[in-house]
Amino acid sequence: MKIAVLPGDGIGHEIIAEAVKVLNVLDLSLELETASVGGTAYKEQGHPLPESTLKLAKEADAILFGAVGDFQYDNLERHLRPEQAILGLRKELGLFANLRPAICYEQLTHASSLKPELVAGLDLLIIRELTGDIYFGQPRGRRTATDGHFPGAEEAFDTMRYSRPEIERIAHTAFQAARKRKNKVTSVDKANVLETFQFWRDVVTEVHQQYQDVTLEHMYVDNAAMQLVKAPKNLDVVVTGNMFGDILSDEAAMLTGSIGMLPSASLNARSQGLYEPSHGSAPDIAGQGIANPLATILSAAMMLRYSLNQAEAADRIEQAVQTVLAQGLRTGDIYSEGTTRVGTAQMGDAVVAAL
Amino acid sequence: MKIAVLPGDGIGHEIIAEAVKVLNVLDLSLELETASVGGTAYKEQGHPLPESTLKLAKEADAILFGAVGDFQYDNLERHLRPEQAILGLRKELGLFANLRPAICYEQLTHASSLKPELVAGLDLLIIRELTGDIYFGQPRGRRTATDGHFPGAEEAFDTMRYSRPEIERIAHTAFQAARKRKNKVTSVDKANVLETFQFWRDVVTEVHQQYQDVTLEHMYVDNAAMQLVKAPKNLDVVVTGNMFGDILSDEAAMLTGSIGMLPSASLNARSQGLYEPSHGSAPDIAGQGIANPLATILSAAMMLRYSLNQAEAADRIEQAVQTVLAQGLRTGDIYSEGTTRVGTAQMGDAVVAAL
Ligand SMILES: CC(C)[C@H](C(=O)O)[C@@H](O)C(=O)O
Ligand SMILES: CC(C)[C@H](C(=O)O)[C@@H](O)C(=O)O
Repeated sequence: MKIAVLPGDGIGHEIIAEAVKVLNVLDLSLELETASVGGTAYKEQGHPLPESTLKLAKEADAILFGAVGDFQYDNLERHLRPEQAILGLRKELGLFANLRPAICYEQLTHASSLKPELVAGLDLLIIRELTGDIYFGQPRGRRTATDGHFPGAEEAFDTMRYSRPEIERIAHTAFQAARKRKNKVTSVDKANVLETFQFWRDVVTEVHQQYQDVTLEHMYVDNAAMQLVKAPKNLDVVVTGNMFGDILSDEAAMLTGSIGMLPSASLNARSQGLYEPSHGSAPDIAGQGIANPLATILSAAMMLRYSLNQAEAADRIEQAVQTVLAQGLRTGDIYSEGTTRVGTAQMGDAVVAAL
Repeated sequence: MKIAVLPGDGIGHEIIAEAVKVLNVLDLSLELETASVGGTAYKEQGHPLPESTLKLAKEADAILFGAVGDFQYDNLERHLRPEQAILGLRKELGLFANLRPAICYEQLTHASSLKPELVAGLDLLIIRELTGDIYFGQPRGRRTATDGHFPGAEEAFDTMRYSRPEIERIAHTAFQAARKRKNKVTSVDKANVLETFQFWRDVVTEVHQQYQDVTLEHMYVDNAAMQLVKAPKNLDVVVTGNMFGDILSDEAAMLTGSIGMLPSASLNARSQGLYEPSHGSAPDIAGQGIANPLATILSAAMMLRYSLNQAEAADRIEQAVQTVLAQGLRTGDIYSEGTTRVGTAQMGDAVVAAL
């Protein structure tokens, strides 16, 4: 089983190193190959997603991804900026299903902005469509407006779109995930305003015919943003488009108060997947050895489960993370009085020890 | 001064009645004229925004709007659904600037989902562009895909767009509002992915040249959704597009825990405005006399301030609302132990008494 390891920028290298440590003690026959991506790749090779990195990613069974982005690349032209690497990988590998768990760990409930009773035990799964919508729709660009409020003015535009098969496959992903959980799916759209999301609602409703054992509810995106704050535990599996999913999955992650703990998976139809922490590259703390590696370690666990068919090893890692939390070990982002503050490498070592 | 009063559906009639009560005791020479809108108008006249209602709205100096929407209209064709009334009014009157305050009242801090220290004293203003973006962009519809992942498949699509003058005018609104507040604007976009919002960022930055006394920061929408949860008090004036504003303004409103208290204003270039509570039509509690009329009463205050040039009267209403809160009067949505539960009409009467 071949894994492409792409550390990226900022804290990427530090957190990936710990996940690699953990994978290495599992005694599975994994072949890990590292390549650069993001701003680092731009610096070294002139492009955030070099051909060689893309080739490695395509050949691998799974990709373990750190994070990309750094202030120093903010003024590059768009197609050279670090985030193009992640957009490019999603597109080139067809990684249409993004699974973003938002879990509130018992020991970390206090770290949430929300009152403990609202988030204690929270375990919700946001399923974001990742290769369609306004992220990739054509045409897009700048032009002179020919209609609208200011004909003749300069304008910029993008195209939102979803085709039936794109909606169908992500709906199947959601209903199947719901069957392994609480048999409930909330589909988030803006059917009252957008043609794209009226169609989304229609197609999700059709696919639901094949999953009569699962309850389906439809919710407008503005209401979903509210319900996440008001009563997140009323939601279980939430499925939505790329743009709304970007916003809601980050909102949900922040609700838990411990985004440093949250992994993610982005899968294609062949179960090839890219696995990365839900948090970013945090350039402000890069190189200090204080970043939380647990989201990346848990991403490696998701990788074992979803792409490498090693559910047992995944369970072991997740169990080991529970153990280090129970031991009171905490990186700075989740530290609270009475616990033991550790650095990135110490946390990784502790997980290894717990294994 | 002529005011179009449009109660709408659900609790609309009940809450508007209290705002009208309040306006009537102010002894301003206001001419109020009522017309139907939304599902109610569809039922009576076959269209959610009848010609006569639109005509009245256009002639009036301001519109006091209740709420629209009810489950019974969910299966109507889109162009006949209640929410088309509000979209139509925004478009026909050119109400491009939506001001959505998110204020956490001292006495109601406990009602928030967030820990009290995070929201106590929260006073943020979201300025949402309201007549552009993907809400109104053409073309939109269904068609057969000619490219993308599934050429030949059925697809639906919408067009996101912003022209330079549309961005300029809402940026001016934001910077001017900031001058009356903390001299800080956060512009929310998705410049890393969307052409429309790269342009948005560019134009806002240009307009900012004229407001060097105001600090401008740019924030991605996914990050904004997180920062609202993490540290809402770090934000003051937030300006964004129609779609992102829809989501973020509702998220922010819910953070306060008392959406029943939050007014909104939608203004055009001539300071004509539509004023409505931030909450919806709540058909589940309609007709029971328990809805909170304060958001609507506070919307009437905003109307006096922004469209009718009666800042003093506006202050008086806002003061009266503070008084009834201090008296411990609460409708069900904001009730807590030790306070006095009142109905819609009693609450309106109390505000009148406080005046
Ligand atoms: C970096 C950016 C392009 C990306 C996105 O918008 O998808 C990120 O926010 C994410 O959610 O992975
Ligand atoms: C009813 C709907 C069309 C409307 C919108 O999306 O703008 C509403 O959510 C709002 O925010 O006023």
